[in-house]
Amino acid sequence: MILSSRMERLQNTELLMLMELASSKDIISFAGGFPSPDAFPAKEMALATQEVFKHSSKEALQYASTSGFEPLRQLIADRTNKKQNMTLNLEEILITSGSQQSLDMFGKLLLDEGDIVLCESPSYIGAINAFNAYQPEFIEVTTAEDGINIESLKNILSLKGKDIRMIYVIPDFQNPTGRVWSLEKRKAFMAVMSAYEIPIIEDMAYYDLAYEELDRPTLSSLDKKGQVVSLGTFSKIFCPGLRIGWIQASRLILDQIRLLKPNMDLSSSSIAQRQIYQYMMMYDLEAHIEKVNGIYKRRRDLMLDIIEGEFPKGIQYMKPKGGLFTWVEMPRGKDAKVLLELALKEKVAFVPGNSFFPKSNVPESMRINFSCMDDSKLEKGGKILGAIMHRFLEG
Amino acid sequence: MILSSRMERLQNTELLMLMELASSKDIISFAGGFPSPDAFPAKEMALATQEVFKHSSKEALQYASTSGFEPLRQLIADRTNKKQNMTLNLEEILITSGSQQSLDMFGKLLLDEGDIVLCESPSYIGAINAFNAYQPEFIEVTTAEDGINIESLKNILSLKGKDIRMIYVIPDFQNPTGRVWSLEKRKAFMAVMSAYEIPIIEDMAYYDLAYEELDRPTLSSLDKKGQVVSLGTFSKIFCPGLRIGWIQASRLILDQIRLLKPNMDLSSSSIAQRQIYQYMMMYDLEAHIEKVNGIYKRRRDLMLDIIEGEFPKGIQYMKPKGGLFTWVEMPRGKDAKVLLELALKEKVAFVPGNSFFPKSNVPESMRINFSCMDDSKLEKGGKILGAIMHRFLEG
Repeated sequence: MILSSRMERLQNTELLMLMELASSKDIISFAGGFPSPDAFPAKEMALATQEVFKHSSKEALQYASTSGFEPLRQLIADRTNKKQNMTLNLEEILITSGSQQSLDMFGKLLLDEGDIVLCESPSYIGAINAFNAYQPEFIEVTTAEDGINIESLKNILSLKGKDIRMIYVIPDFQNPTGRVWSLEKRKAFMAVMSAYEIPIIEDMAYYDLAYEELDRPTLSSLDKKGQVVSLGTFSKIFCPGLRIGWIQASRLILDQIRLLKPNMDLSSSSIAQRQIYQYMMMYDLEAHIEKVNGIYKRRRDLMLDIIEGEFPKGIQYMKPKGGLFTWVEMPRGKDAKVLLELALKEKVAFVPGNSFFPKSNVPESMRINFSCMDDSKLEKGGKILGAIMHRFLEG
Repeated sequence: MILSSRMERLQNTELLMLMELASSKDIISFAGGFPSPDAFPAKEMALATQEVFKHSSKEALQYASTSGFEPLRQLIADRTNKKQNMTLNLEEILITSGSQQSLDMFGKLLLDEGDIVLCESPSYIGAINAFNAYQPEFIEVTTAEDGINIESLKNILSLKGKDIRMIYVIPDFQNPTGRVWSLEKRKAFMAVMSAYEIPIIEDMAYYDLAYEELDRPTLSSLDKKGQVVSLGTFSKIFCPGLRIGWIQASRLILDQIRLLKPNMDLSSSSIAQRQIYQYMMMYDLEAHIEKVNGIYKRRRDLMLDIIEGEFPKGIQYMKPKGGLFTWVEMPRGKDAKVLLELALKEKVAFVPGNSFFPKSNVPESMRINFSCMDDSKLEKGGKILGAIMHRFLEG
């Protein structure tokens, strides 16, 4: 068997092996990015599902259309219009099998080998790997706590603009850092980008997981020329087990996506689309998100207390205003992979941050998830990890 | 926006537009490949789903693992072992989001631009398009009613063997022709192929939809060196709305697939996997398949009666022993696309067969689906289509 050349880029088995270890039952894990199962509306979903079977079992068990279940597309458009003061219609929404599929689609749609992708530094590893399958070159745009560095962006665009095929950004509570872009950054970014015909992929996976009031118009709401593609998902605000996300984009772009989707999975799950639709008709999704945010905000506060109290003083860390992650940087010269090996021996895990940089080398960084564990586990794991870091940094 | 070069191959919008027309409500359509919704076990699935919510709602609504829900993988392995007299274990089964995703995965895994893919002539359009995204060259192996032409295969292998990256075949009730490979062809094929290290992708989507007793060992059951990858799906034998299929392959191959799947959709639907598992534990899937086959066999018989009675004598057609399709060839020089335009004016649709050939030009061919309509619709549509064909061939 001869493998395609793209597979050379995807053989990151060292990290996979560590993550395999991290997922075993007896590990206290800060490694995942999973939403908390305590927050799933299980009873409501059971009832919503009964309604789906009662009223549309045949349609629910058949293939869905390429673009997705129209009433769900309409609800998503309505919701976005209300939250972002926009005027989308359902033709600008296409349902996908989760946001990860959307990322794969845009790699497929836009990238030939050697084409340039711009991204934040660091960025979501799942996006980097999805794009990697199409063998592009990445250029990282330096990114500060308040968002992407506009001067750095301008320089790269002026040097490489014609070879850049997309820019991928996560302006809201980014995976992995927890960063949120300021209003000024959002505006400045769109002002700069609008001079180019480069598609902007805006990943909104964490958009609704805000624990503080912030003025955060989406990039698509600031877009005057149909340049922004926004990727949404029910995974973090609702339930990932259904594997339903969406693409919000111009009809022109969605027409191209419709040429790809049938070849990738024929259609997204019909029943899952109807389950979510039915839930949204019977219950208040926004109230559910508020409840979820209450849980995560408390865990974030606890995590930050633990870091403040238990982690060594020599580290730097992010105080995220939303999302599921915080980001820790140890002093230069320290390698988080070595730290992880020590931590796993004491049954604690996290993700070394270096994997989130497609090009740069920042081995001292780590991503810490705080959404998945109850208070006592967070505290216990935090204390153990803090003690290990003390020994590691002082050693 | 600059599109990737692969998109040039996927702009088959003419057929898409015709198919769009064919899917409108008032059309009698022989075009689809959908299983019959009358055959879905809706009540049983509703009850199985209630059980899933009762006993494992949190796991069902969370992400699944990359390889899929272990108890379901075990059931699939057990079922295959029983039917094919094999000794698979669950490590040789990986769950996918339907068989179409499996095809996309093998394109991604094996194909660089210009690599050669062998396939039957004609072959499944969804596979051709899935592979097309990775820009290979196709070579069609001529195929007779009893299966692939072994001499033609030998010639191609001796000329091009080292550039061939996979061979894709559908030995059982093929989409689009309804062909089934004879036992002799299966054995001869494996004997020839075993001299090469070329992966064999065996599409089993229609394997269980048999309306006559035939000796049909799967290629994987004849495989002595881990060369065959078998793609299974619940879509045709059960319900496509769940989007669950599987890959049966060596661990070595599945290890590579595990590097791709997270980048494509993170995981397949957790709840859908558990729904199918629960159904299989509570009910008898084989009895359900028998029931479905009873329905489809009757429709096949009716369809063949209609063709015999209503279609012009100058055509050739397949008498399929299973599956969802028959294949019609008009005399040379007649174009099924022109016929489709005439048929659509009288509210009847089918798929012109030419799209199923990646290279050859066979405009006189047509694919006729018989699984999706009740008797009266089949008869009415068949009479209309027959009358149009009479005029078309005599005109």
